[in-house]
Amino acid sequence: MDAQGKTVVLFACFGVRPEPWLAAFDQTAPDFDWRVWPDSGAKEEVDYVVVWAQPDGFLRQFPNLRAVLCIGAGVDRILQDSDLPDVPIARMRDAGLTQGMVEFVLARVLHYHRLMPAYEAQQREGVWRQLAAPLAGERTVGILGLGQLGGACATRLAANGFSVRGWSRTPKDLPGVAAFDGPIEVFLEPCEVVVCLLPLTPATRGVLNARTLSHLSGASLINVGRGAHLVEADLIPALDAGHLSNATLDVFATEPLPAGHPFWSDPRITVTPHASALTPPGTAGPTIVANIRRHLAGEALLDLVDRDAGY
Amino acid sequence: MDAQGKTVVLFACFGVRPEPWLAAFDQTAPDFDWRVWPDSGAKEEVDYVVVWAQPDGFLRQFPNLRAVLCIGAGVDRILQDSDLPDVPIARMRDAGLTQGMVEFVLARVLHYHRLMPAYEAQQREGVWRQLAAPLAGERTVGILGLGQLGGACATRLAANGFSVRGWSRTPKDLPGVAAFDGPIEVFLEPCEVVVCLLPLTPATRGVLNARTLSHLSGASLINVGRGAHLVEADLIPALDAGHLSNATLDVFATEPLPAGHPFWSDPRITVTPHASALTPPGTAGPTIVANIRRHLAGEALLDLVDRDAGY
Repeated sequence: MDAQGKTVVLFACFGVRPEPWLAAFDQTAPDFDWRVWPDSGAKEEVDYVVVWAQPDGFLRQFPNLRAVLCIGAGVDRILQDSDLPDVPIARMRDAGLTQGMVEFVLARVLHYHRLMPAYEAQQREGVWRQLAAPLAGERTVGILGLGQLGGACATRLAANGFSVRGWSRTPKDLPGVAAFDGPIEVFLEPCEVVVCLLPLTPATRGVLNARTLSHLSGASLINVGRGAHLVEADLIPALDAGHLSNATLDVFATEPLPAGHPFWSDPRITVTPHASALTPPGTAGPTIVANIRRHLAGEALLDLVDRDAGY
Repeated sequence: MDAQGKTVVLFACFGVRPEPWLAAFDQTAPDFDWRVWPDSGAKEEVDYVVVWAQPDGFLRQFPNLRAVLCIGAGVDRILQDSDLPDVPIARMRDAGLTQGMVEFVLARVLHYHRLMPAYEAQQREGVWRQLAAPLAGERTVGILGLGQLGGACATRLAANGFSVRGWSRTPKDLPGVAAFDGPIEVFLEPCEVVVCLLPLTPATRGVLNARTLSHLSGASLINVGRGAHLVEADLIPALDAGHLSNATLDVFATEPLPAGHPFWSDPRITVTPHASALTPPGTAGPTIVANIRRHLAGEALLDLVDRDAGY
């Protein structure tokens, strides 16, 4: 709280342009005292932090912190903080973020489903040849993770005719989606396209590795979860062995993907710069404000993170 | 009719493998006398012809022809016959054909919508840069032609959130689709993606030309109608002028697209070999048989072509 009794909210989203967020905040909560890192003012005045990609130990410096609000759906970076204050954490749930992810995943699944990499290769060779074209219903797409993003992608793929199966820690009931909570190897076996939208936790780190990928046969991988879900050293060998035919990677162990990394130049791999779904400040800003107002009124935050589950 | 009194149906689909069709016909109509061109037997015995891409004047040689059934949705090739017998003609309407077209169009619209050509270019340069990502609702997609295929694509795009407008000769009322039957130049103006699924008639031949394309600004063109809808010589100039950013062509004035044609090697153009939607014999074969049985019973053919309209 500042000297005038206003609630102090610090915007500390590293690598994110603050202007569109502040515009949204100013409109919905001119009564708050908004500050942008590193201009936090007196640290004991900070009530809430809106955060992304903070350095380790960052949050501990605010002694009167009441809650943390993340601008992304994945809160792994926050939970990995080695000195995390014991305050509630809210993840982002935003219709625009979800819609963006659904569009990206649908775009890449359809691209692989309709054999576009093969047609592009034929075009380079000047070859005119029709390829067998199964319909979506004959194509099994597996979604790893059925949270707000994975669940939305699964149901949209099903609505567009795909045969969809979903894998999650706790069983989920989604329209048109065959739910599965058994061993991932068994889950992957029939998948022709695999989409990773798991939360990153100790249990899911490295879940895509030489052993699990070996259960696929010529599949397409779309990783829009976190880079650390994939053991990156295992990807090109899995492509070489034919377990995978191609991959779209939007997330990486190190971002930006370092210059000269073999993923940049492998024709079987499509690299996008963590751009599958961006949180739109215009709708997400008011969501954050409303959540802070709830908390100020003594209610629990919406979209509260379960620290034990890790998401 | 043959000597045993059986109905004679001639399969004369040029460039199409007859085996899967005959398998479907044999299952549904073993009581018909099926023949495959050029083994037509006595020409006066032929009652029906199932046709695709026939040479000019082909149909005139069967003096007792009762009707013609096309295995495709577009019947322009039949109607261009300079000596076409005066018998009813049925086009193909098949759920699998429609679903295939919807999937292809959705794949290409999403590919352009999500800026994949720009990301692919960035990857070739090793550039990590997020690009502005409007959601589907902020993207105007124009569908030329709202028949069985165009209408299905328009409604599916709308169901996936796009802002869809459709242009047709006669006004159509489709859910989520803004219908338009005015001048095509006015229709095209706001379109960021244009999908051509018109029937090919004297009125639509060359409808995509230097003049009409000049009303677009950086748009993506997807031609899955007929090659002759596009004045091919006008395409690369429209790309060079920035009216178009890129194009996916599945149909061409001459098919297969001739070796050395500039479309093969232009990085802004994606060439597919008339493969957007193939008629599946397993479902379409029984549809043709059922239509012939209707006609034999004295009823009008379903999906009858209107010769005056040209489709």
